[in-house]
Amino acid sequence: MQFLKEGSITSVKGIKAAGIFSGIKKAKKDLALIYSEAPCTAAGTFTLNKVKAAPTVISQNSIKTGQTIRAILINSGNANACTGDPGFSDAYDTRNYCAAKLGISSEETLLSSTGVIGVKLPVEKIKKGIDKIVPLLSASGGLKAAEAILTTDLKIKSYAVTVKLSTGKVTIGGICKGSGMIMPNMATMLGFIATDAKIEKPVLQQLLSAAVNISFNRITVDGDTSTNDMVILLANGLSEINITENTKDYSLFLEALTSICKEMAKAIVVDGEGATKLIQLDVKHAKSLSEANLVAKGIANSPLVKTAFYGEDANWGRILSAAGNSGAEFNPAKVSIYFDELPVFMPDYEIVLDEVKAKEILIKDSYTVTIDLQAGDSSTTWWTCDLSQNYIKINAMYRS
Amino acid sequence: MQFLKEGSITSVKGIKAAGIFSGIKKAKKDLALIYSEAPCTAAGTFTLNKVKAAPTVISQNSIKTGQTIRAILINSGNANACTGDPGFSDAYDTRNYCAAKLGISSEETLLSSTGVIGVKLPVEKIKKGIDKIVPLLSASGGLKAAEAILTTDLKIKSYAVTVKLSTGKVTIGGICKGSGMIMPNMATMLGFIATDAKIEKPVLQQLLSAAVNISFNRITVDGDTSTNDMVILLANGLSEINITENTKDYSLFLEALTSICKEMAKAIVVDGEGATKLIQLDVKHAKSLSEANLVAKGIANSPLVKTAFYGEDANWGRILSAAGNSGAEFNPAKVSIYFDELPVFMPDYEIVLDEVKAKEILIKDSYTVTIDLQAGDSSTTWWTCDLSQNYIKINAMYRS
Repeated sequence: MQFLKEGSITSVKGIKAAGIFSGIKKAKKDLALIYSEAPCTAAGTFTLNKVKAAPTVISQNSIKTGQTIRAILINSGNANACTGDPGFSDAYDTRNYCAAKLGISSEETLLSSTGVIGVKLPVEKIKKGIDKIVPLLSASGGLKAAEAILTTDLKIKSYAVTVKLSTGKVTIGGICKGSGMIMPNMATMLGFIATDAKIEKPVLQQLLSAAVNISFNRITVDGDTSTNDMVILLANGLSEINITENTKDYSLFLEALTSICKEMAKAIVVDGEGATKLIQLDVKHAKSLSEANLVAKGIANSPLVKTAFYGEDANWGRILSAAGNSGAEFNPAKVSIYFDELPVFMPDYEIVLDEVKAKEILIKDSYTVTIDLQAGDSSTTWWTCDLSQNYIKINAMYRS
Repeated sequence: MQFLKEGSITSVKGIKAAGIFSGIKKAKKDLALIYSEAPCTAAGTFTLNKVKAAPTVISQNSIKTGQTIRAILINSGNANACTGDPGFSDAYDTRNYCAAKLGISSEETLLSSTGVIGVKLPVEKIKKGIDKIVPLLSASGGLKAAEAILTTDLKIKSYAVTVKLSTGKVTIGGICKGSGMIMPNMATMLGFIATDAKIEKPVLQQLLSAAVNISFNRITVDGDTSTNDMVILLANGLSEINITENTKDYSLFLEALTSICKEMAKAIVVDGEGATKLIQLDVKHAKSLSEANLVAKGIANSPLVKTAFYGEDANWGRILSAAGNSGAEFNPAKVSIYFDELPVFMPDYEIVLDEVKAKEILIKDSYTVTIDLQAGDSSTTWWTCDLSQNYIKINAMYRS
């Protein structure tokens, strides 16, 4: 498995992309198109929010039907959420227009939107944008597409990895966006991944769900989950390398897919709204995996813990208190807490915190907090960021 | 029912209190004592955090045994939490010392602590403080006690109410502290309430639980819940007015108790860390009460909603999205949202937002947000505050 420098979704054979400014936002790129030269099997994971945006519902349905997919049209700056029936008409309208321009069927076209909720989609601007973007599709357009899907993100998130299988190499490439509202079960996060491997739809969905479950579903910025989130995986088969279940190639591919998903997920946390630090949370020896995840999520979402991370304050008491609040079963007297390798709090409430050594860790951009519950055999790893004054600044006036 | 101006817990017949500086904090008052001239029946509600501080466990046990209570010793500046067996010895030590000074039994003395977690209780300072505070107990000491229990609170929270029953008047008085980490099921909040009514213990517990359930358990500042929270209700019977179940007096008393609990709870939200606004959340027509509370809690705890309140931004989309995330069952197309009386979002996704009129409401210190789900017959009311940059400032360096 090898990550490619400046890799993107267009590092995958037969995948073209482009990103342009179409006038939805004031000045930044806001329209992206991903296109595959060959029909793709497709898998997706979608927000669990009861309030789902029109493009989310439409794309989820396209994938459900088992339809092959050729293109994904994505806009930022407008979520097309809470827009009622007109929102659906607008979405179908842009989908039809885009498909016609590409010479493919509407059903082969997925839609995705991110941005402000409750504002009508500017269909005419998007149609003009489609006229402009289709001729720009290219095998080197991945980074431009990655730029066009951003909202309050500060950095482009684009990765590709190659993996050597028994009969040759396949590539997996992906772009994503995140920022606020990141939380398990999808959040305002969009991820688009493609591979040139040949994979049947049920197997593809199984691979994506497994990878998302321990990557995108284990990150949190602020505990919120949006109306528009999705991760899509397309497989166009152009490498002519087949991946089937219960093979060594399957495991190798899953490992590579999970790696790229983790890189994408961590990049979202690092670029979380106002975030200054990436913190890895290792929860060890929980009673069950679901309890390990409860504890990790409780710590990762506690505003008091996250503000202490921001303040570079070794406030282990807040970490323990957040774990105690999570609903998981454990005996506080058995717990130990570490910052990187440094023991801070040991069983029987022994406080071994060395403030000077702790500070050396806490001032870093990235470190690991481990909490060992000694309550069972299950472990988990999550990623979160700190909560800074900038988060408030960014979100207080978002619509303005 | 009548609220008393400058009322406090010492407005209640036979209740004395005092508050002093004992050296736990650097300069501010940090030790409070509440004392009843007559033995009290006692009721309490306590944190559900798995990690419970020593004084919390001890007081909970005292109330469980059905013991009558004469005094409550409270310190701020040190939570005596995560301090292991020595924390329990320290707590028992101060309890014995205080009881001896008061000439009562240790079992009649409740303990409560709030402040930093994981730091040994300064027992000698507290003992010297007890020497100093016992002679200062007075029938006008309620406000000083209210001051001594504060941590990052900016304002003293002290209330009293009288209620006319069939055979005469009784008084209920209370003091409390809150600030960060306020969240249903108690949070870092301490509430101490007394009454001169005569009420048997099981009835008293029933009254307190009912009142807390729709007051302190319906507020949230940041979704965190602490190791030390409790609300205690003492009834010393000195009014010689008996309250028993299934009487009109019971209902009148419950109404008064609920009113004072709501005033105390709202005062905690208003004084939430960094809060600039008090927002009442009315959730209407939910499928069940638990779903109504899920929706209210989801909105009240969403950092994106709370930062929009701070920014005075009419971002109703975030309110709907937070409701959609709550896990409650409803059809988004039936939902309506109001700021005070102003309709903002109507069924079938009709956006009727008048930005100018909305701004007039959102710039106020206090207003009501109503979300009508049209999914059933259950309603609830919660209170929350906005999330400001000051919250981060206060919490980033709390231990320093």
